[in-house]
Amino acid sequence: MITVYGSTPSGNCWKVRQILELTGRPYRWVETDSNAGATRTPEFLRMNPNGKVPLVELDDGAHLTESDAILAHFAEGTAWLPAPGLPRTRVFEWLFFEQYSHEPYIAVARNWIRYLKAKERYADRLPDIWERGHRALSLMEGRLSTHPWLTDSGMTIADIALFAYTHVAEEGEFDLGRYPGVRAWLDRVRLQPGIRPLA
Amino acid sequence: MITVYGSTPSGNCWKVRQILELTGRPYRWVETDSNAGATRTPEFLRMNPNGKVPLVELDDGAHLTESDAILAHFAEGTAWLPAPGLPRTRVFEWLFFEQYSHEPYIAVARNWIRYLKAKERYADRLPDIWERGHRALSLMEGRLSTHPWLTDSGMTIADIALFAYTHVAEEGEFDLGRYPGVRAWLDRVRLQPGIRPLA
Repeated sequence: MITVYGSTPSGNCWKVRQILELTGRPYRWVETDSNAGATRTPEFLRMNPNGKVPLVELDDGAHLTESDAILAHFAEGTAWLPAPGLPRTRVFEWLFFEQYSHEPYIAVARNWIRYLKAKERYADRLPDIWERGHRALSLMEGRLSTHPWLTDSGMTIADIALFAYTHVAEEGEFDLGRYPGVRAWLDRVRLQPGIRPLA
Repeated sequence: MITVYGSTPSGNCWKVRQILELTGRPYRWVETDSNAGATRTPEFLRMNPNGKVPLVELDDGAHLTESDAILAHFAEGTAWLPAPGLPRTRVFEWLFFEQYSHEPYIAVARNWIRYLKAKERYADRLPDIWERGHRALSLMEGRLSTHPWLTDSGMTIADIALFAYTHVAEEGEFDLGRYPGVRAWLDRVRLQPGIRPLA
């Protein structure tokens, strides 16, 4: 059986649990808390030298890293990942956007404020993080104010990847009130069969 | 003909030029300097609301963003991107690693020091950037000290993506002397037919 090393509150780990459930694959979950150092032990680093969760162990002992690569791995051959060509490229554009322009701000603010309870400690860095996070949300709003999903292929792993931290962005003190398109999309994702939000 | 909006010194833009040349696609290059604000004009933002290069315009007017998504788009169906399944997933693991754990440090230090000439201005942030960049290089060394390429599929777009900023890392004051495996791999990439390094 597939084993997932993950931290329950993590959006990146949520993506993996979600795609495994949506594609009907049984898995075992091993709770692994990065904030408590569990991804920096010698045992863990042997499995993932990058010291991060989520980490997937397949039946044959192979390990998969990088949440969005894992999403694509398990979505291959399903409607969650369109066929190669422009439809698939549109999905990957959003996946790379998520990891470069969204997660480093939306997820990081949430972790500092909600989980590390370190808002004071990061007081000088948070304004920049918030500004960049709002830029990412505005870009999503540009698409979602006029379209139901991030790509023209219906709901895909692009929507799963961006839902992960957007639906808990308010825990990082991002006010979603100014993004009606994003809020309507969050509700749309929540209504899909098999979606189990973090909050 | 394909049009590429790009900045010549940018490693992200280099990736696009390189995959188009390796796969034999003619293109037109429009020099576009982010540091001079050329990606923030209303005309540019209509093409890419994220305000970044590289940006590809296809014959039918569609635009592609995100350098690693563009690499995968043009590599589809060639030996530069292995078939779906574990071999392809290994490539995407490295692509997401590049955008999350490598580029934000290696490329950013180089841009601040070499292009913005702002080493003094960023003096308080550079030590952290250097430390994280060295973590990324060490992780690459772990693989490349015992393997010729980043994945077991020969040279792929994973190697192109990581070569982009690694081969100019010293412009961001990263000493590659301590990474013999990485240096041997850089030489191996340079020797491939059709590779035209930035430096």
